[in-house]
Amino acid sequence: MTARYDIAALKTALDGIKTEDNAALVKQKSRDFFWYSPVLKRQLEHVVGDLVVTPRTRDEVVRTLAEAHRLGVPVTPRGSGTGNYGQAMPLSGGVILNLAEMRNITRIAPGRVTCEPGAILSDIDAATRAHSGQELRMHPSTYATASIGGFIAGGSGGIGSINWGGLRDLGNILSVEVVTMEAAPRVLRLTGADLAKVTHAYGTNGIITEVEMPLTAAYPWVDVIVGFDDFAEAARFGNALGEQDGLLTKLITPIAAPIPQRYFLRHKRFLPDGKSIVLVMVADHAKDAFNLFLRRFSKAEVLFDASQIPEQDREGLPVNNELSWNHTTLRALRVDPAITYLQVLYPFPHQLDLVTKIHARFGDEVMGHLEFVRFDGKITCFGLPLVRFTTEPRLDEIIRIHEDMGAPIFNPHRYTLEEGGMKQTDALQLAFKREADPQGLLNPGKMVAWDDPAFDFATGKTYLYPSLAATLA
Amino acid sequence: MTARYDIAALKTALDGIKTEDNAALVKQKSRDFFWYSPVLKRQLEHVVGDLVVTPRTRDEVVRTLAEAHRLGVPVTPRGSGTGNYGQAMPLSGGVILNLAEMRNITRIAPGRVTCEPGAILSDIDAATRAHSGQELRMHPSTYATASIGGFIAGGSGGIGSINWGGLRDLGNILSVEVVTMEAAPRVLRLTGADLAKVTHAYGTNGIITEVEMPLTAAYPWVDVIVGFDDFAEAARFGNALGEQDGLLTKLITPIAAPIPQRYFLRHKRFLPDGKSIVLVMVADHAKDAFNLFLRRFSKAEVLFDASQIPEQDREGLPVNNELSWNHTTLRALRVDPAITYLQVLYPFPHQLDLVTKIHARFGDEVMGHLEFVRFDGKITCFGLPLVRFTTEPRLDEIIRIHEDMGAPIFNPHRYTLEEGGMKQTDALQLAFKREADPQGLLNPGKMVAWDDPAFDFATGKTYLYPSLAATLA
Repeated sequence: MTARYDIAALKTALDGIKTEDNAALVKQKSRDFFWYSPVLKRQLEHVVGDLVVTPRTRDEVVRTLAEAHRLGVPVTPRGSGTGNYGQAMPLSGGVILNLAEMRNITRIAPGRVTCEPGAILSDIDAATRAHSGQELRMHPSTYATASIGGFIAGGSGGIGSINWGGLRDLGNILSVEVVTMEAAPRVLRLTGADLAKVTHAYGTNGIITEVEMPLTAAYPWVDVIVGFDDFAEAARFGNALGEQDGLLTKLITPIAAPIPQRYFLRHKRFLPDGKSIVLVMVADHAKDAFNLFLRRFSKAEVLFDASQIPEQDREGLPVNNELSWNHTTLRALRVDPAITYLQVLYPFPHQLDLVTKIHARFGDEVMGHLEFVRFDGKITCFGLPLVRFTTEPRLDEIIRIHEDMGAPIFNPHRYTLEEGGMKQTDALQLAFKREADPQGLLNPGKMVAWDDPAFDFATGKTYLYPSLAATLA
Repeated sequence: MTARYDIAALKTALDGIKTEDNAALVKQKSRDFFWYSPVLKRQLEHVVGDLVVTPRTRDEVVRTLAEAHRLGVPVTPRGSGTGNYGQAMPLSGGVILNLAEMRNITRIAPGRVTCEPGAILSDIDAATRAHSGQELRMHPSTYATASIGGFIAGGSGGIGSINWGGLRDLGNILSVEVVTMEAAPRVLRLTGADLAKVTHAYGTNGIITEVEMPLTAAYPWVDVIVGFDDFAEAARFGNALGEQDGLLTKLITPIAAPIPQRYFLRHKRFLPDGKSIVLVMVADHAKDAFNLFLRRFSKAEVLFDASQIPEQDREGLPVNNELSWNHTTLRALRVDPAITYLQVLYPFPHQLDLVTKIHARFGDEVMGHLEFVRFDGKITCFGLPLVRFTTEPRLDEIIRIHEDMGAPIFNPHRYTLEEGGMKQTDALQLAFKREADPQGLLNPGKMVAWDDPAFDFATGKTYLYPSLAATLA
């Protein structure tokens, strides 16, 4: 895996910039949460970079890219490495560009925060709350560790999407500064239509060095867990709660039994056997309204209400957002490594029917986990169901059945942008890569359209990046 | 009209509390904006109270109610008198309880403001903005003059309802303090399910002496007016904009030509003939996203953008919120007294079709004015179309045709709670009136179920309060 590139020359050229080539440390920074997927685990386990470069300023990023470009060394950017699609895995080795130390929060204004890409989401919120009672509109469940740059480059939404939709929606990212991968790297500020060039592009066509995000009011959120005897009723409750226009929530997560009982170990005493649950984050000033809403569901039972439990009794309990979204999967994986998951969209207006039908079809093999969101102006749900993994062909079959039944899958078992997402070339991102990374040195192997323009997504065949194919063979 | 009650005795009993019995001043305080409706104008023009009482504290309210109760004098509460359903008209004379001087803002906290009922909506926002960058979730177009108590007692929603739905929605009012009309008036604090007892009850079953409202982030809002060659396209634009989950707006108001050209006189230079328009209030940090969204509508033309016009050139121009909701009607009435209006709900998901069909049915007799809102979790629109008034039977017929076509009407030509609203008895409000106003002295004539329990709303006949009937006969 070594000696592919002239790393020694690169190190010399980067004198004054923090680098690391200790094999164990390089390996540690060469992984993200790709191991969520048994498929990615098999494909990417051996992947490792050659040198970790940790710039502290935009100028150091520019210098790093210029030198790497000169020496033909690939560069794969990395925030906190909490992505789970292999987006930060250096498939061709080379430089791991660790942006974790570029974490300044440079400006806070009404509705806006500007910061460097390595800023941790919860640190941003702490700063904007202290400054003016504001917070980010949405964040993944890796809030406490994930970076804003990684979220924009490889995330899609999460806690808060019940109010604001996803990062793809107009207005949820204000501007991004990127550095190009050229002999003389350019620093570009992208806004408006240009944002789509680099957002959710895994850093394949530019290195994000600054972002400006919209803010919203930061109110104290109360964690509540509501129990139901069946999952369909939990889903109905979640949907109806999402449709309460005046009742401010930030998270609505129905999860089918026995997931909570088996995998939410620290909450065990709150989770009677057989209960499906809905995790809720509700604004403290909406608590009365929430209690009133609860009365409409005669079988709903409040199992946990953080506002009613003394702080010392909550010690050690994860907050609700760390039980939700990809953390549901994470907690299951910690208990049972044979668990994996999918990412499903149940389109409005048939989302509840579809959830019921699909879960009836699979039984215990696919366990229900929904996340209610706003999507194109309506309330509907994504699913991150847990799947008892047996074989890759069976996993593909489960995906196909979902899609045949009307529930599109965003496949978390693929490391390329296209296969994980829209299953088609993103012409804008491809065109921008031609302009900003003409040598194809940024995060190689993640954009199929760059590597293999003739690849036909319609066949359903999995793309395999040549350098991986060689290693796996 | 005088000598119905022992007003002299009441005045004496209220010694120390501000009262006014000058006939001209009493008449002035005996009217609201009932004259928006030619029907209410005919019915209520002559209505006048006997004494204006202007308490400055809750204790003065309690004393006033106790003395009026003892002497059998009716009490009709009043905020700023900007309601347009006759809700503040003293149908049986007696006391006009003018709450305008109880306007303290007593507490501001994250997500909450507590204030007295006479506080003006824009004053509340000025205070909450200065305190912590917060503002009320919604307000009527009479923002600059209307009181919070009047809004809760007789309003339904308005600017901001595109994000939060209406006052009827759980969570949009936090708590209300009311004083009962009894020998020894009680002071009750209502929250949760109890709020529905007195909200939108026109003060028929208690006098609101304090309210607690939820707040949201106060961002600078930019007024934009977008022009279209046809109203259906303007409506499509408004609907699509409302469905943009990440694009923060506060007002989306399509208005058909020739309304803007005829009635928005000060904006004349911005409004080419034939253009239907959409009024928008967009957060300044959403302006880039809004401009990008605009590109999806090739025929959209920005006619006015407050952020691009020097302040001196905007002098004397009403802000967008004073062109919207009931202010659209108001501006039309100022130019043409023969104009009146309706309040229509176009239910999701067929709102755009219904708007087109209904306007095709009526042609120039009914001119289009929509207000996009969140309603039960979906984006849809209310209509406040302008109607060229001819006769009352024709107005009733227009209403019937709307309802037959699937668009429920909230009739602004009725002064009773039931006929203006759900056309049925509100059992909760009626029961609370029995408890809180056993003598029926609060705002008489506004709750049909109290006066005439046998009244059958299904007949479509208009209820006429007996004391009015006597006068009109």
